[in-house]
Amino acid sequence: MAMSQKVTNTQNSDDMIVRIAEIEVYPEYLNEYLAYASEVDRLSVEREPGVICLFPMQDPADSCQIRILEIYANDAVYQAHLKTDHFQKYKQGTLKMVKSLKLNTMRPMDREMMKAMFGKMR
Amino acid sequence: MAMSQKVTNTQNSDDMIVRIAEIEVYPEYLNEYLAYASEVDRLSVEREPGVICLFPMQDPADSCQIRILEIYANDAVYQAHLKTDHFQKYKQGTLKMVKSLKLNTMRPMDREMMKAMFGKMR
Repeated sequence: MAMSQKVTNTQNSDDMIVRIAEIEVYPEYLNEYLAYASEVDRLSVEREPGVICLFPMQDPADSCQIRILEIYANDAVYQAHLKTDHFQKYKQGTLKMVKSLKLNTMRPMDREMMKAMFGKMR
Repeated sequence: MAMSQKVTNTQNSDDMIVRIAEIEVYPEYLNEYLAYASEVDRLSVEREPGVICLFPMQDPADSCQIRILEIYANDAVYQAHLKTDHFQKYKQGTLKMVKSLKLNTMRPMDREMMKAMFGKMR
């Protein structure tokens, strides 16, 4: 896993980390990878208060192309997440399945708007 | 705006449309574009019940690279959205500002999980 990049946001002083992860999986491992990813994403959001959102998506034109919207409350939360048993199980278990991994740290446009934007998801 | 693509999801029969829009804006129009985008995203989520999420992000390494996570309840909602006054104001107002636009329709991994994933945003 690449080093976490701290979000620098001139519009607010938030420490929140927002990322679009781009993952390509080898086709022969796709189903197995998806099972690992679903488990780690679910457990992380359930067990780690600062893991705000992990939202995995597949490209319908190429199912091996996975995108995950990741939102962490701050860098300390993210560093702790990397050390959890469920993350390490996912990381070690999927090492051979992942062809490429790109972690794109993004800057959310507005924290208050962000809450409203996701308000209908529950 | 490109034609909407219907999400086909073998894991559930949901009609939900999930998309990562990739937009590149000309630098000279960036601030003006961001004002337009913030307004249309906020108004759409406020006024249109089926517009579930519009979450704009900027690439900190290149502020002109905008990504928007878009979630619509179904295709009818999306088609209606395209006809609203606030969307048309955004679309016509920003035509000259947008260098490139790519609408990547994605398949969410699991609808139930999706609710849990966004549960902490409020």
